[in-house]
Amino acid sequence: DDLAKAALKKTDNNENNPYANDPERHPALLVNQETPFNAESPPSLMMDHYLTPNDIFFVRNHMPVPDVDASKHRVKIEGLGVTKPLVLTVDDIKSGEFEEVSVTTVIQCGGNRRADMNRFKKVQGLMWEGTAIGNAKWTGIRLRDVLLKAGVDPSDTRIKHVHFEGADHDASGACYGGSVPFEKAMSPETVIAYQMNGQPIPRDHGYPLRLIAPGILGARQVKWLVTVRPSDVESPAHWQQKDYKVFPSSVQIGDPLDFSTVHSINEYPVQSAICVPAPNTKVERSDGEVDLAGYAWSGGGRGIVRVEVSTDGGQTWQCAELEQDPDQDVHHMWGWTLWRATVPIPEGKESFQVVCKATDRAYNTQPETPGALWNVRGLLNTAWHRINIQVIED
Amino acid sequence: DDLAKAALKKTDNNENNPYANDPERHPALLVNQETPFNAESPPSLMMDHYLTPNDIFFVRNHMPVPDVDASKHRVKIEGLGVTKPLVLTVDDIKSGEFEEVSVTTVIQCGGNRRADMNRFKKVQGLMWEGTAIGNAKWTGIRLRDVLLKAGVDPSDTRIKHVHFEGADHDASGACYGGSVPFEKAMSPETVIAYQMNGQPIPRDHGYPLRLIAPGILGARQVKWLVTVRPSDVESPAHWQQKDYKVFPSSVQIGDPLDFSTVHSINEYPVQSAICVPAPNTKVERSDGEVDLAGYAWSGGGRGIVRVEVSTDGGQTWQCAELEQDPDQDVHHMWGWTLWRATVPIPEGKESFQVVCKATDRAYNTQPETPGALWNVRGLLNTAWHRINIQVIED
Ligand SMILES: [Mo]
Ligand SMILES: [Mo]
Repeated sequence: DDLAKAALKKTDNNENNPYANDPERHPALLVNQETPFNAESPPSLMMDHYLTPNDIFFVRNHMPVPDVDASKHRVKIEGLGVTKPLVLTVDDIKSGEFEEVSVTTVIQCGGNRRADMNRFKKVQGLMWEGTAIGNAKWTGIRLRDVLLKAGVDPSDTRIKHVHFEGADHDASGACYGGSVPFEKAMSPETVIAYQMNGQPIPRDHGYPLRLIAPGILGARQVKWLVTVRPSDVESPAHWQQKDYKVFPSSVQIGDPLDFSTVHSINEYPVQSAICVPAPNTKVERSDGEVDLAGYAWSGGGRGIVRVEVSTDGGQTWQCAELEQDPDQDVHHMWGWTLWRATVPIPEGKESFQVVCKATDRAYNTQPETPGALWNVRGLLNTAWHRINIQVIED
Repeated sequence: DDLAKAALKKTDNNENNPYANDPERHPALLVNQETPFNAESPPSLMMDHYLTPNDIFFVRNHMPVPDVDASKHRVKIEGLGVTKPLVLTVDDIKSGEFEEVSVTTVIQCGGNRRADMNRFKKVQGLMWEGTAIGNAKWTGIRLRDVLLKAGVDPSDTRIKHVHFEGADHDASGACYGGSVPFEKAMSPETVIAYQMNGQPIPRDHGYPLRLIAPGILGARQVKWLVTVRPSDVESPAHWQQKDYKVFPSSVQIGDPLDFSTVHSINEYPVQSAICVPAPNTKVERSDGEVDLAGYAWSGGGRGIVRVEVSTDGGQTWQCAELEQDPDQDVHHMWGWTLWRATVPIPEGKESFQVVCKATDRAYNTQPETPGALWNVRGLLNTAWHRINIQVIED
């Protein structure tokens, strides 16, 4: 296995290795898979910043990172209702013809917190812990403005979805793809971004152009964007049709999976997690209390109205302090909520469990356990997050 | 107490009784409070109709029913950004100047299923069981069209909310009121309705005009509508500011309630309940199985993608058959989902529990118990609905 990894190292320039040209990564990233590269953020570092720094932002790649020359990169706008097809260069997009806008938004992998669900009962997929999520300020132009320039009529009822394709592709040449509902594509928060936190988008995150559709599944926010295509149906891509679907808990590993019967994931449900301290941290009894920190977020722009923590398994709860983007209102809250709370160390126990849960603007909240959420692919685990803390009698 | 009730009977025409002119009601309604009149639907009758019949639709009145002469009724449109104030008669509204539209939508009381939460731990409010909810087809005109005629600019960023007032009022003359976000007021599904299921709106439901804002709390859908007022702030009315707010579970009965710290309820979270059979129904072992039926619904137009039932307390689940409005898509599903399932009678038990839960388009789902949802006013109980069934050995 070590030999296999060595063979895949970028430095060996193996021409048969499609991953040989992947970028260098920050050593603090917690690597889940080397090829394709998948890594999550170090939890405590993530908590230090409302905007997650680019170099520790989680990476979820499905294929090798394409080696894009920005001066030659093009985005095609074509398809249903497009009366003036466009081929835009990166310079066209930055020219000022389209208004520059910024949006601060979470991107969360559909598999975030899968490992927790897997500990409850075995599931299939990359074993993400709780930091396959990050919050960044993306700068670019509204997708709506580009579609309007391409002659798309906002009231064209034939158009139901907009497809996106990336420059990343598998060995057969099939490129990554996904789609969002037409209404989301036309919403002002949906952008073609060229900057992430004020810098050119890093290669791992879609250089030079990425589709940002706040409030929905990360997998739809296509990196290395090359095609925008209005359509009457959802994207035919594998990741829209045969992945990122939540089967009922009655479907077991090994059962036939009829993907056509299940809706593709679009908006994310309400989520929260504890990032500090780490699970099984040892605290001293004489400290009397423990400082906690974490994040909360919900899909569809539904702002977080409350995060609560419990040290008695959910019998009683304490409200956490919330940090939110002051420029976003509770109906259009694309950015996350960081939360902090200090809880007393319970008397007479060698260890105790800390639990957190969040409530969003629609008063949706998280289920107690992964049990009823369990699904064969381990997607969208939003059960109460629980960690154990050890107490040292000092 | 019986004497007091007799004194309040409509037939005694007591001029000091503000409820003397309330309408006659269908005897099948399950009365929760006589004055103001509050009653829920009989569960099994409700399940017989996708559109809940007007005469068994739940009634949630806060004050006496106003005695409105439709020929003299007026709706004023005034306030922030209104450059051409309007005073509309019912005939103006029906004149054809504004396009007639229909929307099938649920109205659900914020206290629906409070009795279940109260059985878990005492709360304050009317003890609604699970049928303070109904689904009707409302016909009228778009609120948006009226606001545009009144000169409101859809891009006026000063306007954040739209207030509504009803003709119902308390002894001091203060009228019922509430508000919705400006964006919701301008959405095409929000209407000033004059028909409910093809009939003039019954007096108990707002004759002659009611505001219908699909996907949000029933209490905002103001009956006997007399005022529409754009504003920079939420409605100052009692029911917006000092009621219909969900406190954290840490706030107990008797604690001071600082309403200014808590968001008003707007969109409803995902909900479901079992309506058939009734709790504690006796079934015969030899039948082998039991037929179940109920409803599911979520706020914000988030369609129901799955309803599941369990007979082992949520260890294993079975998917129910769903009945939905074929004219509504999963992103704009204002109407409810009726569901049906047949479950086997578990072996070797004198009684068993049936549980249901629903999942909406954003993959939000219901929490297992009312525990973490518990709030002093017993609002928005969306915990898994559970009923017991008795088994007769025959
Ligand atoms: Mo993902
Ligand atoms: Mo209500």
